[in-house]
Amino acid sequence: MQKMKANVFHGPNNIRVEEVPRPHAVAGEAVIRITLTTICGTDLHILRGEYAVKRGLVIGHEPVGVIEELGEGVTGYKIGDRVLIGAITPCGQCRACLSAQWAQCGHGDSVEAVGGWRFGNTINGAQAEYLLVPNAQANLAKIPDELSDEQVVLLADIASTGFSGAESGNIHIGDSVVVFAQGPIGLCATAGAKLMGASFIIGVESDPMRVKMSKRMGADVVLDPKQVNVVEEVKRLTSGGADVAIEALGIQQTFENCLRCLRPGGTLSSLGVYSGKLQVPYDAFAAGIGDYKIVTTLCPGGKERMRRLMSVVQTKRFDPKPLLTHNFKLDQIVEAYDLFGSRRDGVLKVAIRP
Amino acid sequence: MQKMKANVFHGPNNIRVEEVPRPHAVAGEAVIRITLTTICGTDLHILRGEYAVKRGLVIGHEPVGVIEELGEGVTGYKIGDRVLIGAITPCGQCRACLSAQWAQCGHGDSVEAVGGWRFGNTINGAQAEYLLVPNAQANLAKIPDELSDEQVVLLADIASTGFSGAESGNIHIGDSVVVFAQGPIGLCATAGAKLMGASFIIGVESDPMRVKMSKRMGADVVLDPKQVNVVEEVKRLTSGGADVAIEALGIQQTFENCLRCLRPGGTLSSLGVYSGKLQVPYDAFAAGIGDYKIVTTLCPGGKERMRRLMSVVQTKRFDPKPLLTHNFKLDQIVEAYDLFGSRRDGVLKVAIRP
Amino acid sequence: MQKMKANVFHGPNNIRVEEVPRPHAVAGEAVIRITLTTICGTDLHILRGEYAVKRGLVIGHEPVGVIEELGEGVTGYKIGDRVLIGAITPCGQCRACLSAQWAQCGHGDSVEAVGGWRFGNTINGAQAEYLLVPNAQANLAKIPDELSDEQVVLLADIASTGFSGAESGNIHIGDSVVVFAQGPIGLCATAGAKLMGASFIIGVESDPMRVKMSKRMGADVVLDPKQVNVVEEVKRLTSGGADVAIEALGIQQTFENCLRCLRPGGTLSSLGVYSGKLQVPYDAFAAGIGDYKIVTTLCPGGKERMRRLMSVVQTKRFDPKPLLTHNFKLDQIVEAYDLFGSRRDGVLKVAIRP
Amino acid sequence: MQKMKANVFHGPNNIRVEEVPRPHAVAGEAVIRITLTTICGTDLHILRGEYAVKRGLVIGHEPVGVIEELGEGVTGYKIGDRVLIGAITPCGQCRACLSAQWAQCGHGDSVEAVGGWRFGNTINGAQAEYLLVPNAQANLAKIPDELSDEQVVLLADIASTGFSGAESGNIHIGDSVVVFAQGPIGLCATAGAKLMGASFIIGVESDPMRVKMSKRMGADVVLDPKQVNVVEEVKRLTSGGADVAIEALGIQQTFENCLRCLRPGGTLSSLGVYSGKLQVPYDAFAAGIGDYKIVTTLCPGGKERMRRLMSVVQTKRFDPKPLLTHNFKLDQIVEAYDLFGSRRDGVLKVAIRP
Repeated sequence: MQKMKANVFHGPNNIRVEEVPRPHAVAGEAVIRITLTTICGTDLHILRGEYAVKRGLVIGHEPVGVIEELGEGVTGYKIGDRVLIGAITPCGQCRACLSAQWAQCGHGDSVEAVGGWRFGNTINGAQAEYLLVPNAQANLAKIPDELSDEQVVLLADIASTGFSGAESGNIHIGDSVVVFAQGPIGLCATAGAKLMGASFIIGVESDPMRVKMSKRMGADVVLDPKQVNVVEEVKRLTSGGADVAIEALGIQQTFENCLRCLRPGGTLSSLGVYSGKLQVPYDAFAAGIGDYKIVTTLCPGGKERMRRLMSVVQTKRFDPKPLLTHNFKLDQIVEAYDLFGSRRDGVLKVAIRP
Repeated sequence: MQKMKANVFHGPNNIRVEEVPRPHAVAGEAVIRITLTTICGTDLHILRGEYAVKRGLVIGHEPVGVIEELGEGVTGYKIGDRVLIGAITPCGQCRACLSAQWAQCGHGDSVEAVGGWRFGNTINGAQAEYLLVPNAQANLAKIPDELSDEQVVLLADIASTGFSGAESGNIHIGDSVVVFAQGPIGLCATAGAKLMGASFIIGVESDPMRVKMSKRMGADVVLDPKQVNVVEEVKRLTSGGADVAIEALGIQQTFENCLRCLRPGGTLSSLGVYSGKLQVPYDAFAAGIGDYKIVTTLCPGGKERMRRLMSVVQTKRFDPKPLLTHNFKLDQIVEAYDLFGSRRDGVLKVAIRP
Repeated sequence: MQKMKANVFHGPNNIRVEEVPRPHAVAGEAVIRITLTTICGTDLHILRGEYAVKRGLVIGHEPVGVIEELGEGVTGYKIGDRVLIGAITPCGQCRACLSAQWAQCGHGDSVEAVGGWRFGNTINGAQAEYLLVPNAQANLAKIPDELSDEQVVLLADIASTGFSGAESGNIHIGDSVVVFAQGPIGLCATAGAKLMGASFIIGVESDPMRVKMSKRMGADVVLDPKQVNVVEEVKRLTSGGADVAIEALGIQQTFENCLRCLRPGGTLSSLGVYSGKLQVPYDAFAAGIGDYKIVTTLCPGGKERMRRLMSVVQTKRFDPKPLLTHNFKLDQIVEAYDLFGSRRDGVLKVAIRP
Repeated sequence: MQKMKANVFHGPNNIRVEEVPRPHAVAGEAVIRITLTTICGTDLHILRGEYAVKRGLVIGHEPVGVIEELGEGVTGYKIGDRVLIGAITPCGQCRACLSAQWAQCGHGDSVEAVGGWRFGNTINGAQAEYLLVPNAQANLAKIPDELSDEQVVLLADIASTGFSGAESGNIHIGDSVVVFAQGPIGLCATAGAKLMGASFIIGVESDPMRVKMSKRMGADVVLDPKQVNVVEEVKRLTSGGADVAIEALGIQQTFENCLRCLRPGGTLSSLGVYSGKLQVPYDAFAAGIGDYKIVTTLCPGGKERMRRLMSVVQTKRFDPKPLLTHNFKLDQIVEAYDLFGSRRDGVLKVAIRP
């Protein structure tokens, strides 16, 4: 039996690169030789035991690679094609998918929230030499020749998620938008808001390096929550409240402040993965009659989403490459998690190469 | 100075009908001689001191009447026209109105949630012999001859609000919908869900008389929360969760259960006026990545909304009259509040006639 | 080699039931034993040579049947399950499908309008004893036990198409809607408009039997174009123009009259299959600045669409059975085409049973 | 009686600047002293007799100025405020306005297409020293101090119209868009498509100076219809068809080519003012079943629209100033029409100063 190296979760604070069986494709599947992947904030939640996955699982969900095997019935591809696969892998054929809710894909019509997130969650993931891709026909997105692996790897999750924060917020030309936290997802939400025509974008962030990147991604102003009363300042700058507030951290305070920053009728677009229950303050919620909307979005996946995001990079509307700040070999991934988790050294995202 | 009788708020649990100055119309305004009005759940909140308004205010916000005076510049109407006026009276000319958020009308472009609700909140209301209508051009809706006062009075607030629960829920043909609480608003939400093509509607209610009315308004099944585990039962009946859950009570338990009843990607449409902060449970919210939406809606107003709602009654798509269960004179309004507040005697809504 | 009987197209005005090879399922496919099917207006276009398909093709695209064979990888079904399959069979996995444009399914990402319509168009169809279903996982919709074949067969195309006329018209509660022609599709559009909350529905039809059925399906008024000036009458009845006009015939005159009936900002929802170019009159189009919308819709397919439509029948929101006016054996199908094509004897739709 | 200079229409090809009575404001109105205006393509249609207005009318509909008089009831403004007024002046209070169709404003609830366009159409317009503004409360948009007249005058019509072509096309991040004709409106449509996140924008234009400006406004490629087969080239560049095609010329050929350039399910967003009937080709329309949408949009107006557009200029998302290529005094306006109409000398838009 062929083996491969992979990053295996063995329990909270216990991951290691080891040899595991190499996957093979049956009908409808593909196997990808990973050329580049990365680590996500969600992987940190897994590592820390805050989001449960089963022991023995290969983790990671942001794969770029080359097609190594194609199962029966997967057409339009050939071995050797460079492909990007989204973090979420919809089947395209279940009730959720046929209702345009691909991220909540039910695989065989079971109904379960976040069913569409499989890599490194319910099946083996991308921090490995090889990756088995289910529902390959719906998920293999060919990478245009002019784009490098480094230009597309962050589209699998963080750009798709970040942009979706702007999209679910239904941003219109001329909107004012505030984005809480300028980590990788928040930075992409900022870029997404800019792409959709927001005329005034306020980032909220303290870290000087992220503040700088926030402006590069499109923020007109970045507020430091350690220095100013962000809610008051947003209300002042927007003459009464932002049209859309995007939550990109996943904690009570930012969720609540998002709501407080909105004008009546505004939208809170939430991207954070929360670790506990949330509270909706009475006043900020206007007793339920302020026409507020709270929308949550799981990273959109599937090959068409990936194709669209790559087209945005291709015509230079958005450049995710500056977010890839550090490089590691797969063998060094524990070290990479440590750096990424500690936010040392100005890290935003790390490139992992098998 | 001419006087009129009106129901005045003097402090918590202290209202009384007394003589107050009769209003007169200046430019852009109208005065209506009230022929029929009613009491709203929000009026109970006011009476009980749970929602603050200033002492001395005439309360009530559901007016049907006859035009008595027309200020300069109000065109297309004449003295004596029978009119319905929505509970919310948008000006049509401010930033919120020109953004299609009429219920959050800012009057002069101030920005304040629920600014569009003025009658019996920030200006004198409808439980009186006469009512001053601001922004009359945008708010006087002529009543077709074939409709009686009794057929339209409930459109001013409860039908507009209830239907908006279905509309904001973005119900599609074939959706499954659960409506928590079958009071007047919930019953109208049920009717609204039916009108929009929901193929399976579940009411949640214990009161036998309301259960019966719920079925009349369109519920396919009504669950008694005292008898069954509503969340489990909704999930079973809908094979995994409702597409839309409408909250029509305004308490933590129903808000939370709405969320628990949804399928991934579903919408919680909240109509309740809450009296404190809310909690969003971690599991029910799928940690923020279940693609859930929470939308709140304040009663849509304005004459075009009223015209549309009357057209629905005119062609017998919806009949609000059975919800008007009791009749009182304006002089008896304290008694009417008592009956309405205690939910005695199968009361749903009370007709109040000056 | 096993044989089956099927209705084969041999050229304009030349169809006949004959023995052809019986299909078998490979991976991802299913074979259905047809228990009930029908004839569509589009089949008449084919028969008359107005819409070209290749000679030798089995035609028909409205299948109800029982699963006979399941190819590898099709899960959640078993031999003997009763199923309904939509006229349009999206793959769920191509660019169009992953863009929520399932009717324009590109099968392997080719780009071609009406690519999603395959049965009796590009592959063998349903007027046969057996039918090969491609992309079975996305297209087999189990029929609830309480629904008969006769209650669901018209959902495959005419109800899905007719309802989509209302859906694409984006009908809201309180809209006025005019539906041109009350044939099977127009009748379902009328029912769809009613389901979505249109408060005033005008049918346009001369045939007395269809006029009667139009009222049964939800029309408030039916205008006879041989008796009245429909455009003037619609404008009068709607005080200036309908919010939505649905075209369900496919000729210049009705297309044009739809446009003329609209209020400024209204929507023309076109369902007709036209046989030549159309003209957009200058005045009716307000020189291009009347904020009009013209939307066209091909029958939505896929198992989730079918499930939703069946749920509407299940709770008695809509009953398509009265539209099935005549019964034929598959052997008599030439006779059935003749009756259906001539509109004799009050025919609306014919049941064809192999 | 006070007089002012104004450009008066006396019949086809007959305009002249002359003295006319100066307007004064009554309740709800304002008078503006015009500081900057311009000439629109629609004014050329009027001058040439292709669009009828009554003789004696002052034409022009793109006003920037200073408040000179405020009628009773107009609040929040003071004499001397610099304001921009949109070409379309909705009342905010009629059926159309209260249905969010402000451009089709019916003023007193009459129903008439393009009712919202009044300046230089049904009432005196902006090519004058003073302008009477109806429904002033809904239409006076204060100009931020940091913006010059020259930066905002083109927002009144061409930017609002051009952007609306992108907005009505419902452009999403990653869409491919083709814009036919790169005159002032088309250039703004190109800028609007870029603002909304289109990842690939194709301009269609022959004039070298406009080609250059097209790239500056956001086009990735500009095709010369005199050199290439535009439809074929768009299909090639977009791998099968654009998601959205914007018509910004108003003739049969561009309308038709827009349709031919679309992928199945695509949207033709039409901005042109046509001078005769249009034809919809059979094949380009896929016989009516290609899920195509054709949407038309009249310039959105009102003060909130203007505020939003100014905010876009304020944060440098869009700079309309380069489109203002020539300067004239009001006295020279006949000369300015001549230059503008002949497209000589690289003219795009002309500044007219009273």
